[in-house]
Amino acid sequence: MSTSERLIESTRELLWERGYVGTSPKAILERAGAGQGSMYHHFKGKPDLALAAIRRTAEEMRAAAGKVLDGPGSAYERIEAYLRRERDVLRGCPVGRLTMDPDVVASDELRAPVDETLDWLRERIAGIVEEGKERGEFAPSLDGEEIAAAVVATVQGGYVLARASRSPAAFDAGVRGLLSLLAPRGRHAA
Amino acid sequence: MSTSERLIESTRELLWERGYVGTSPKAILERAGAGQGSMYHHFKGKPDLALAAIRRTAEEMRAAAGKVLDGPGSAYERIEAYLRRERDVLRGCPVGRLTMDPDVVASDELRAPVDETLDWLRERIAGIVEEGKERGEFAPSLDGEEIAAAVVATVQGGYVLARASRSPAAFDAGVRGLLSLLAPRGRHAA
Repeated sequence: MSTSERLIESTRELLWERGYVGTSPKAILERAGAGQGSMYHHFKGKPDLALAAIRRTAEEMRAAAGKVLDGPGSAYERIEAYLRRERDVLRGCPVGRLTMDPDVVASDELRAPVDETLDWLRERIAGIVEEGKERGEFAPSLDGEEIAAAVVATVQGGYVLARASRSPAAFDAGVRGLLSLLAPRGRHAA
Repeated sequence: MSTSERLIESTRELLWERGYVGTSPKAILERAGAGQGSMYHHFKGKPDLALAAIRRTAEEMRAAAGKVLDGPGSAYERIEAYLRRERDVLRGCPVGRLTMDPDVVASDELRAPVDETLDWLRERIAGIVEEGKERGEFAPSLDGEEIAAAVVATVQGGYVLARASRSPAAFDAGVRGLLSLLAPRGRHAA
């Protein structure tokens, strides 16, 4: 792996573990096994390197979510597959966690890939809810964008509950709760 | 306000804004207008002071949530009041945000008030859902603990969406989405 690659990958790991504020250039260089000069050779500084790292993490998240959301099955089944997809629950979301970072939220440039990814996710799920309404899976009164926001929020907030209790059980409970509310009418009474 | 009070209040503000990792003893002393010796006179150090600050923030959150959850109205209305209660959405949750802090999650002592508060909240809401089931407001198939986890996760994840987009709209959308799913049967078709 090239030095530039090692710097990006180390930054991604540290941003996930410790956030932007908690990640020093020194820690990145140590983890990457790189000298001080190499960061400034390849990147303008910590914000520039972090932007490359955040963009890559966002792309990966989008690809992984897209895979289950574009998969086979009914609208309900695809949303279920998204909610139940395997996750490293106790590590939290590498994209969503950045919203708790004051320096990321304060920077339009660093915040952009975070916002765009969560926005893309909500729009994708909203489209699936609308499909489900057309097929009669969901009540016509439901609003696709609102349900999508609730789905994404349940996942992001599920990480909060899981990390607070250091157990994935709370994440799973929230997902099951939302699915029981979203389940097509026939299943509800089952 | 006494020096000890000023230290606690400054720490609460900084933990909310910048998290534990992003809050230095120096920043606390500066905001509190206190000298270096005063922190060690009143507290054993940053973790001890942070614990006092987190405990107070957790107590306040519990009191504010309890007020609406114990209020008048049906089970649905009390959950709705909790979800819609006025919040400083773009600042996020001063308790939940600590779960993204590696040093808080790694410390059983600092994590305890966070875990206990979110746990208390989930149990309180689960009880209200069970009441609503008994009164025929909610389907008997719903699980109180699961619905409660979804409710709390929607709020915590709503902050993530709002901060990502720097607008409370996404928080509100998620809350409306969850409420439309939770609404008693009669309302659903309305």
